[in-house]
Amino acid sequence: MSEPQRPVRIVDVAALAGVSPSTVSKALNNNGLLKDTTRERVQQAAEKLGFVPDAAARSLQARRTYTVGLLSTDSAGRFSLPVVLGAENALLAGQISALLATARHDPVREQHHIRSLVSRRVDGIIVTGRTTEPRAPIEALAPVVYAFAPSTDPRDASVVPDDADGMRQMVEHLRSLGHRRVAYVGGRPDQRSSHLRYDATVTAAQERGMTVVGEPRYGEWSERWGRHAVDMLTGDGLLVEDGPDRVDAVVFASDQIARGGTDRLRERGMRVPEDVAVTGYDDWQVMSMASRPPLTTVDMRLETLGQRAAEMLLAAVAGEAFHGTELVTPRLIARESTLGTS
Amino acid sequence: MSEPQRPVRIVDVAALAGVSPSTVSKALNNNGLLKDTTRERVQQAAEKLGFVPDAAARSLQARRTYTVGLLSTDSAGRFSLPVVLGAENALLAGQISALLATARHDPVREQHHIRSLVSRRVDGIIVTGRTTEPRAPIEALAPVVYAFAPSTDPRDASVVPDDADGMRQMVEHLRSLGHRRVAYVGGRPDQRSSHLRYDATVTAAQERGMTVVGEPRYGEWSERWGRHAVDMLTGDGLLVEDGPDRVDAVVFASDQIARGGTDRLRERGMRVPEDVAVTGYDDWQVMSMASRPPLTTVDMRLETLGQRAAEMLLAAVAGEAFHGTELVTPRLIARESTLGTS
Repeated sequence: MSEPQRPVRIVDVAALAGVSPSTVSKALNNNGLLKDTTRERVQQAAEKLGFVPDAAARSLQARRTYTVGLLSTDSAGRFSLPVVLGAENALLAGQISALLATARHDPVREQHHIRSLVSRRVDGIIVTGRTTEPRAPIEALAPVVYAFAPSTDPRDASVVPDDADGMRQMVEHLRSLGHRRVAYVGGRPDQRSSHLRYDATVTAAQERGMTVVGEPRYGEWSERWGRHAVDMLTGDGLLVEDGPDRVDAVVFASDQIARGGTDRLRERGMRVPEDVAVTGYDDWQVMSMASRPPLTTVDMRLETLGQRAAEMLLAAVAGEAFHGTELVTPRLIARESTLGTS
Repeated sequence: MSEPQRPVRIVDVAALAGVSPSTVSKALNNNGLLKDTTRERVQQAAEKLGFVPDAAARSLQARRTYTVGLLSTDSAGRFSLPVVLGAENALLAGQISALLATARHDPVREQHHIRSLVSRRVDGIIVTGRTTEPRAPIEALAPVVYAFAPSTDPRDASVVPDDADGMRQMVEHLRSLGHRRVAYVGGRPDQRSSHLRYDATVTAAQERGMTVVGEPRYGEWSERWGRHAVDMLTGDGLLVEDGPDRVDAVVFASDQIARGGTDRLRERGMRVPEDVAVTGYDDWQVMSMASRPPLTTVDMRLETLGQRAAEMLLAAVAGEAFHGTELVTPRLIARESTLGTS
């Protein structure tokens, strides 16, 4: 573990040059009556120590508190907690402490939190969200990185899961098992991830000569909706033995929906994956592992995402700000709901 | 919202009394050559401002950072996150910031975190745990309060859910619905809460002329174990129609176990609650609300618990340390798994 990077102060330069701090100030600002040799000695000492003689940068350096704010708007914590843990991990390695601030969807409370973090003079702020819906940027003078929920301002630094790649991996996996016809069941119709995952499924399927049968179904992020969706798919003939619209896999937009769907398929006497393969999303193990059978799903690698957010923030604090949205590549987790128990 | 409580310093007393700080020091320490009227004026000013003239207390006051450490050992966050949020809420109201430190069952990392919090000169530390198992106390000079997982040292300040009262409320509820014979299914056999909840169930049942049938069953905190336990209870005749050991309710030690049990009861053709009532514990809504039917359960009021921990810590920082374990009374949540859909 390396020592904390203490900012170089004017007194350090003064000590090395063997002069007073006010002499350092005069020497570096080219004012005051100094001997050339003194001025030179000070400049060499400043250079050796990496002292930044620009006033703004100097003030920024001096102000570092080695503390970062973690602003979260998630009370459930399912998605934002792993992000927070990943960020904390990366910060800890850099000897940075994390100040927690949880706003719980309350804009007044969020403003209060931001003021509090600013008054603590945090070096920067990581903003996490409970969904991947883009959110309005916060107003703070310190550098900010948005994790999981991106900022609506594309010039801000955001890091989000690459859902399109997650779905591409999933479709590729289904294709490798010989599936050709899939149905898609999304979550809430007003949320971006429902549609983004559908579009990615269609694109990936078309590229591989596969068919996404019928329209996407949207409902809510719940097991109940998963059960209902299976009833709808059955009613529309997609899960009817030897029907013309029969699919051989159902792609659900979350593990929670997939678990409900799997329960209903079993209750209807359909075997997973022998009669129809099922996939989820999130690898929320309370759902994906408890499902019968356990779900093939996509792990968004939220801890890695949080870690990247912290790295980006530390780079911004050091003066190397990133602008734009960075995507974190997820990982396919293959389990019995597609592989079977063989 | 009140202003942050700035510690009263010697210069404040000096300003009010119209004397120099060194005169204040001499007046309050009863040394130096001062006129009695001066000494009196300083003492009145000190009293008016609430200045504490004891050296140790003064130093403590001066050292306050209005920052508290939240040390968690839970990566899943299911139980500790609500505790953290409750604590944060109470701290925020007192204009105190929370430094997050998550140790994830790693003693080396925990030590590192504690050192980091201490080096940040936090006013105190709240330690939360992932279970209610007692944990070894941490070593820190600042005041510490243990939340959810109590300290093994009874002189430490701990705040934990009152599981015995939760089970008493549950048994009372079952009694009020006319149930007389219950079976108990616990979680992990090596964990305190499994046994404590059983003992409380037996005591409460006996007080009400009810019977806890057979031995307690222990397994794990999972849905799978809940399903398996129902198979065992059936095999032992407790869920067999008109059998001599027939029970009319099954008390499960967690929502997760109860959900698995409820699934298996349905799969075996038993109606909940018409044929047998079912209860859970935790009100973990992902389980309790998704269960079919939704579960009657106990809410441990973890946010309130976290809030109490923060209040106890702030009192300790102010010099009023609490010693011992405070219990937070939980709340019964009655739903269809005992009430039916009538």
